[in-house]
Amino acid sequence: MDVSDIKQYMQFVGKAARTASRSIAKADTATKNRALIAMADAVRRDQALLLAANAKDLDKARAKGIEAAMIDRLTLSAKGVATMAEGLLQIATLPDPVGEITDLNFRPSGIQVGKMRVPLGVVGIIYEARPNVTADAAGLCLKAGNAAILRGGSEAIHSNQAIAACVKEGLLSAGLPETAVQVIETTDRAAVGELITMQDYVDVIVPRGGKSLIERIAHEARIPVIKHLDGVCHVYIDEQADIEKAIRIADNAKTQRYGTCNTMETLLIHRNIANKVLPALSKIYLDKGVELRGDSTACAMVTAMKLATEQDWYEEYLAPILSIRIVDDLDQAIDHITQFGSQHTDAIVTENYSHAQRFLREVDSSSVMVNTTTRFADGFEYGLGAEIGISTDKIHARGPVGLEGLTSQKFIVLGDGQIRQ
Amino acid sequence: MDVSDIKQYMQFVGKAARTASRSIAKADTATKNRALIAMADAVRRDQALLLAANAKDLDKARAKGIEAAMIDRLTLSAKGVATMAEGLLQIATLPDPVGEITDLNFRPSGIQVGKMRVPLGVVGIIYEARPNVTADAAGLCLKAGNAAILRGGSEAIHSNQAIAACVKEGLLSAGLPETAVQVIETTDRAAVGELITMQDYVDVIVPRGGKSLIERIAHEARIPVIKHLDGVCHVYIDEQADIEKAIRIADNAKTQRYGTCNTMETLLIHRNIANKVLPALSKIYLDKGVELRGDSTACAMVTAMKLATEQDWYEEYLAPILSIRIVDDLDQAIDHITQFGSQHTDAIVTENYSHAQRFLREVDSSSVMVNTTTRFADGFEYGLGAEIGISTDKIHARGPVGLEGLTSQKFIVLGDGQIRQ
Repeated sequence: MDVSDIKQYMQFVGKAARTASRSIAKADTATKNRALIAMADAVRRDQALLLAANAKDLDKARAKGIEAAMIDRLTLSAKGVATMAEGLLQIATLPDPVGEITDLNFRPSGIQVGKMRVPLGVVGIIYEARPNVTADAAGLCLKAGNAAILRGGSEAIHSNQAIAACVKEGLLSAGLPETAVQVIETTDRAAVGELITMQDYVDVIVPRGGKSLIERIAHEARIPVIKHLDGVCHVYIDEQADIEKAIRIADNAKTQRYGTCNTMETLLIHRNIANKVLPALSKIYLDKGVELRGDSTACAMVTAMKLATEQDWYEEYLAPILSIRIVDDLDQAIDHITQFGSQHTDAIVTENYSHAQRFLREVDSSSVMVNTTTRFADGFEYGLGAEIGISTDKIHARGPVGLEGLTSQKFIVLGDGQIRQ
Repeated sequence: MDVSDIKQYMQFVGKAARTASRSIAKADTATKNRALIAMADAVRRDQALLLAANAKDLDKARAKGIEAAMIDRLTLSAKGVATMAEGLLQIATLPDPVGEITDLNFRPSGIQVGKMRVPLGVVGIIYEARPNVTADAAGLCLKAGNAAILRGGSEAIHSNQAIAACVKEGLLSAGLPETAVQVIETTDRAAVGELITMQDYVDVIVPRGGKSLIERIAHEARIPVIKHLDGVCHVYIDEQADIEKAIRIADNAKTQRYGTCNTMETLLIHRNIANKVLPALSKIYLDKGVELRGDSTACAMVTAMKLATEQDWYEEYLAPILSIRIVDDLDQAIDHITQFGSQHTDAIVTENYSHAQRFLREVDSSSVMVNTTTRFADGFEYGLGAEIGISTDKIHARGPVGLEGLTSQKFIVLGDGQIRQ
C-alpha cells in the first residue's frame, strides 16, 4: 500500500475500517472467540519472529540514544509474548457485551421498551512504545464488536507490524475481514492528525501515553476522546481511621509501584491523628527511599521532610516522592482533592460511617474508595476483564474502561401493532 | 449585570455555574423537589406576567415579519403555562438518579466494587423559540444534580427572562443557589460561541433546534454535544407482516403528526406484499392529503404517486410528504436504512421471528422497533419521565435523553484494609 500520500492513505484505512465494522458488529460470539484464540496461537507460534522484530526496534532506539525508561517499555521478552497470548485468550473467555438486552419493561401504551448493547463502530487507538497494547487493544475492540485502527509509537513499528500479522491471521482464520484491525503502516506524524479528524470513519479515539501526547490529541480531535491526563491520587487518613489499616493502605498506595497512574501522590492526614500515623509512616517511606515533601505542620513532625511548594500539590510524581498535608477536617480534605486532584482515584481511611458516605458522595473522581488502596483502580481488579484505558471524563465512560466502555446502548421497542394516540 | 463584554460576561456566568454545580450535586432529593414545586407554584401564580412578557416577544416577532411556524413555536398560551407547571411537578415525582449505587460486587481481592450515579456538572442548553424549554430544561438539569446555563432564542428573550425569574425563586426558596440555573441575558450571538468553548466551566452542550443550528454548534464546540441532526425514520413492511397491523402502523407513523423528528419519512415495502398493502395505504395517505413519492415499482401501482428522486431518500420532510420504495428482501431494506437513514428511529412490521431479531440487531439506529410506530420514540413514552433531547450519537447517550443521560457513573470501592499484592 502506498503510504506517501498520508491523507489518501488514512482515508483508505478509515473507509476499510467502517466497512469492516459492519461485519464485526454482526459477528457472533463463537466467531469472535475463534479469532481471538487463533491470534493467541499465532502469537505463541511466532514468538521468535516477534522477538526478532522487537530486537530491530530496540537496536534502532538504542542507536538514536532513546532514554532507558522508553527502552524498557519498548522491550518485548519471551514472557511478554506469552502474556500477550494469555491476554487474548482471557478476552475470549469474557462475556460478549454485544446484543445484551436489559431493562425490557412494558409501558402503559402496551409497548415493551428496553436497551440493547451495541458496538461503537470504529475505535482509533494512539499509543506510545509498548507493543503489547497492539494485541490487547485489537482483542478488546474485536470482542466489543468494533473495528480498530491502531497507531503505535514509531519506535515500535517493526514489533507492531509483526503482532499485526498475527492479529490478521486470527481474523482471517475465523472468516472475519482482516481490515477489522488495521495497524497504521507509516510513522509519519501526520497520520495521527488525520486519524483524529476523520469524523465519518472513526467513532472514538483512545489515546494512551504521556500527558502532553494526550493533551495534544484532546485539543485537536474532532472525534470524542476517552482519556485521562494524569493521576494525582490522594489517600485521606481521617480522624477516626483505624491506625493499622491507615498505615498499611498509605504504604501500599505509594510504594507498591511508583510509576502507575493510580499511585498515591499526596497523603492527607487529619490533624488529630497525625502524631499516631505520621512517624510510623515516614519511617516506612524513608526506609524505602521515598522523598517526603510536607506542609509546615508535617515538617515539624518529621525532620527528614522537605517543605512542599504549592506546585507539589498539583504534581503527578510517578516516582518515589510523596507530598503530605495535615488537614483540619474532612471538609478541608475534600476541598484539597477538589482543588488539586485530577479526578482519577481518591481514598479515605475511616471507621466513621458518615465520613465514609460523605467522601463517597462528594469526591468527584472516577474512582472513590473507602479503606483500601488507590492501586486497586484497574480494569482487571474491578472485574472488567481488561481495560483499554482509564477515563477521568464524565461523558460516556468514567474510570477503567473495559468492554462495556467500548459499546453503547440503543433502545429497542417490541410491539404488537400498538399505535400512538 | 454588564453584558456588553460578552467574553467577560460568559466567563462570569460559567464560573458561577461551576460553583453552583457543587451545591446542586450535594443537594438531597427533598430539597431539589421543594425547589421544583416552588418553581411550579411561581409559574402558576405569575401566569399573567408570563403571558404579558410573551406578548412583548410576539409583538416584536410580528413586527419583524417572522414566519408563522416560528410565531407558533414562540406563542405561550394559558394552557402552555399550566403545562409548564405540570411538567415541573412531574419532574419532582421522578426518582432521583443521583447517588444510585448499582452492581456492587465482591472481587477476589476482598474489595467490593460498584458504580455510583453522579451529575455531569454544568449543562449548557441552546434552543430556539419555544419558551417552555426554559422550564423543562431547568427542571431536568436540577433533578439530575447539574447546574444549567440556558441560551434561548433571541425572539423569546422576554418570555425566557420571566420564566427564569420563577425558576430562581424556586431555587432560592429551597435554599439552593440561584446561579444553579442561569438564563443568558444577552441576545448577542457571540454568547453561544463562548458557551460552547468554555471547557473549564461547561461539561456538555445540548442544542435543540433546526439542523443548521445543531450542525454549526457540533462543528464549533470544544465540549461534548448531545444531539441529533435529523430524523429520517423508516417503517419496513416485511413479506411476512400482518396486513392489518402494517397498515395501522404505517398510517400512524406518518400521519399522527407531520412535524416531529420521529415521524416516518420513508416507507419500505417487501415486493411480495406490496399489492396487499400499498393500495389501501395510498388511499389513506391521499385522503389525508399526503403527497406520495415512490420508486418506479410503487408508481406503477398507484397513479397519484410521483417518481421519487435519489434526494428523496435522504429527506426529512417534516411535512405531509412520504417517499415509498419497494424492496426485494430484508437485506435490501436494512441496506437502504443504513445508506439513507439518520440513525434515529426505524421499525419493522413482521410476524417472522428471525426477521424481527435480525432487524433489531442489525439496524444501527438509536431506537429500533418491531410491530409498532416510530412515533413512540419519545422520553415520556419510554418511561424516562421527560426528555432533554434525543441523541443519535453513540458516545454517552443514545436515543431519548432523560435524567439518566444527564448523569454519569463513577466507580466506588469499599474495602476493609485490603492492599494490592
